[in-house]
Amino acid sequence: MSQFNNTNDTICAIATANGIGAIGLIRVSGNKSLEIVSTIFSKSLVEKPTHTVHFGTILSENKDIIDEVLVSIFQQGKSFTGEESAEIACHGSPYIQQQIMRILLQNGCRLAEPGEFTMRAFMNGKMDLSQAEAVADLIASQSKNAHTIAMKQMRGGFSNELKEIREKLINFASLIELELDFAEEDVEFADRTQLKLMVKDVLLYIQKLAKSFELGNAIKNGVPVAIVGAPNTGKSTLLNTLLGEDRAIVSNIEGTTRDVIEETLNIDGIVFRLIDTAGIRESVDTIENLGIERSLEKINQAQIVVVMSDFSEKGSEVEGHASMDTLTAKEWIEKLQIEHPDKKFVLVGNKSDLRQSEKQNDKEAETVGIQFIPISAKKGLGIDELKQWMVNQLTENFDIANDTIVSNIRHYAALKKTETSLQKAQEGLHSLTTSDWIAMDIRQAMYDLGTITGDISTDDLLGNIFSKFCIGK
Amino acid sequence: MSQFNNTNDTICAIATANGIGAIGLIRVSGNKSLEIVSTIFSKSLVEKPTHTVHFGTILSENKDIIDEVLVSIFQQGKSFTGEESAEIACHGSPYIQQQIMRILLQNGCRLAEPGEFTMRAFMNGKMDLSQAEAVADLIASQSKNAHTIAMKQMRGGFSNELKEIREKLINFASLIELELDFAEEDVEFADRTQLKLMVKDVLLYIQKLAKSFELGNAIKNGVPVAIVGAPNTGKSTLLNTLLGEDRAIVSNIEGTTRDVIEETLNIDGIVFRLIDTAGIRESVDTIENLGIERSLEKINQAQIVVVMSDFSEKGSEVEGHASMDTLTAKEWIEKLQIEHPDKKFVLVGNKSDLRQSEKQNDKEAETVGIQFIPISAKKGLGIDELKQWMVNQLTENFDIANDTIVSNIRHYAALKKTETSLQKAQEGLHSLTTSDWIAMDIRQAMYDLGTITGDISTDDLLGNIFSKFCIGK
Repeated sequence: MSQFNNTNDTICAIATANGIGAIGLIRVSGNKSLEIVSTIFSKSLVEKPTHTVHFGTILSENKDIIDEVLVSIFQQGKSFTGEESAEIACHGSPYIQQQIMRILLQNGCRLAEPGEFTMRAFMNGKMDLSQAEAVADLIASQSKNAHTIAMKQMRGGFSNELKEIREKLINFASLIELELDFAEEDVEFADRTQLKLMVKDVLLYIQKLAKSFELGNAIKNGVPVAIVGAPNTGKSTLLNTLLGEDRAIVSNIEGTTRDVIEETLNIDGIVFRLIDTAGIRESVDTIENLGIERSLEKINQAQIVVVMSDFSEKGSEVEGHASMDTLTAKEWIEKLQIEHPDKKFVLVGNKSDLRQSEKQNDKEAETVGIQFIPISAKKGLGIDELKQWMVNQLTENFDIANDTIVSNIRHYAALKKTETSLQKAQEGLHSLTTSDWIAMDIRQAMYDLGTITGDISTDDLLGNIFSKFCIGK
Repeated sequence: MSQFNNTNDTICAIATANGIGAIGLIRVSGNKSLEIVSTIFSKSLVEKPTHTVHFGTILSENKDIIDEVLVSIFQQGKSFTGEESAEIACHGSPYIQQQIMRILLQNGCRLAEPGEFTMRAFMNGKMDLSQAEAVADLIASQSKNAHTIAMKQMRGGFSNELKEIREKLINFASLIELELDFAEEDVEFADRTQLKLMVKDVLLYIQKLAKSFELGNAIKNGVPVAIVGAPNTGKSTLLNTLLGEDRAIVSNIEGTTRDVIEETLNIDGIVFRLIDTAGIRESVDTIENLGIERSLEKINQAQIVVVMSDFSEKGSEVEGHASMDTLTAKEWIEKLQIEHPDKKFVLVGNKSDLRQSEKQNDKEAETVGIQFIPISAKKGLGIDELKQWMVNQLTENFDIANDTIVSNIRHYAALKKTETSLQKAQEGLHSLTTSDWIAMDIRQAMYDLGTITGDISTDDLLGNIFSKFCIGK
């Protein structure tokens, strides 16, 4: 990214959304902001106090009036970027915005690269890297939970926890260094109990953070859910019941990666993406000739798999899947659970209201470690339990409002690396490895942890992060 | 419109364009603005000085942080609307903007109606009606000329001219009243010379303003141009030549009223809309079996009509149109000019570079009052002349940079009514009509003129004008 050589430039960008609005906002940041804006504005802003708003006109090179605007000014150290800045609120005409940009560029501004304002805020120590990344997440957030996570991260919640962990590791490192000093004397260190406890403590915490990514990612990107099962088990009825209760917030999403239509379901602020609902809907009208292959395809894409079975008659859960496979639904799930240990399966017994026999099969399902929920898609029975189960798969062990939830895959990868190093250190402690090796592992862990907040960063990393931002942010 | 009863309400609206941006702006106006915003903001803004910016957080009813924002405040009498106002600059996430709007509404704001901020500015005497209307035009302006006209109107250029005219009419009225005072004494007023001169002066000015609407409307909405002519005269080559020289600013517009594709051409800041270019393009590939009917249809829609003729051989301008009509191109234009006195016609002699004979036919065209331009569409000869002619049809007698150009059809209609009343007054003066009748005409003229600036206005009129604005303006 070129801007790393040009942080002395004064940059400008249109910061509001594209299109026609009542008001458009143009952002200027850098040490010549007020000088440049004053050149094209009807009065000088250079000596004005920070955080003041000024009404006037923007003039073209021929002194034609381009617009009547409000300019807010921020003196150095007092702005989002930490630099001298100005924000020009003009009429929301794309033509006018372009003209103002043109004159700013003519008078010495450079067009900002994507994310460059936030990057400068990071470079100037106004926020760490994970906070900067949260700015983009915050802007993209579309649900309460996504917003909550991004906001907490932006306000430094995550950073503070990482700082604590880092301090613990520094503490650990100093103890290990102490041991190292004595190492040359070949003294045997019998008692590493305290060190072991320290590593265990940090490791557990890192693991909890890493585990939260499943939830964080689900909240950020939605949870893919597959509904599979033999013909006539009531998949489309279940789909309608799930969506019907939530009609207001259901929408069709053109799948960006799969080219299939998905419908979404927002339960407790978590978005579930129902995979290939076209396939389910189709089956209402046409002969359901798509068997096990299509189901397996959907399962591969899913994080949560709902296996439908017709429980209206005794033993039907066996026959129900005869057309799909030679296995019963339960046997099938058992097999799938082994093949996909990372996915969550639930056996849903539909038409359970028509069932006369004692629920022996249900108990069987439970005893073999399969989650079983009897429902009636038609009558709406058991639907709340199913939804609750879906939400629980993600939120169990986490309190979204209070816990730190990791939603950024870069942070997750760094946490996993940290975990690996800490595990090595832990093994080293137990196997009486010499301190210098353990110290190396700890340093590596601290390094990886440091990449999250940007204590450790490279131009490539920063370029990669900020290039995904929008221009103007 | 309901808001006429509710100008005491504090209103709010998202003022920036829809969609995701770096920053979104929410506008609040009304006498409780600062009180309400303070309720949801991390500190009180009520006593803060006008034109200051405050960083803080917006809090939900549960004291969750919705966003970190900058709030600009404007004390009563110091804002766009003239009312106490606040502008909340938040992160440009639609979710966050909706949440902030929700809390504002919860705390006593009302959602602003379209154009209500500008309407309040008008109601509070911050601008007159024609200035308020220019705000919408300014936001919609897409070309230099459209922008110039709207800006001048918004800054009161038009209003000042109308004020001058109004003063002249008041002056006239007082003189007529004087005559009226003597009328009962049955004195004969032989000398109305001064009055006649005054009316003539104003009338000429009103007529010039009304005439400018043709240009103003063209600049605002684009000028429909038809290219017609017999097969193989080179219509598609001309089209390509016209567009080719201007490739950067050419775009396809889905015709909003006619469902045909138009291409546009920006010459000197005036947008020409080339009607039914699909019809012309088609003819390149397919047999040109669409004859005179299609041409007449296009002519009906056009303001400028370019009639193409093949001038490559002597006398070909006769044969060139034999397939369309039994008339020559010149005879056809003569006929069309009579049928459409309001449209501008030009006879374009294409392939003129292949012409050997003396340009006798050209002279003939000129002598019968038809504009003739020899070109070679293929070699690009005469194209600049054609473009210049097209521009001249609109701009002749006007200087866009300095003259007042009327671009609003409501203003045009009011000017035409004013003209009618003044013409009646003029006739009255000449035919020795009594002063009271003439005074009535003048009063009517002043009334119609007053509707432009809003000195005269009704709720219906205001509702009609502002409902076309966007929300947030």
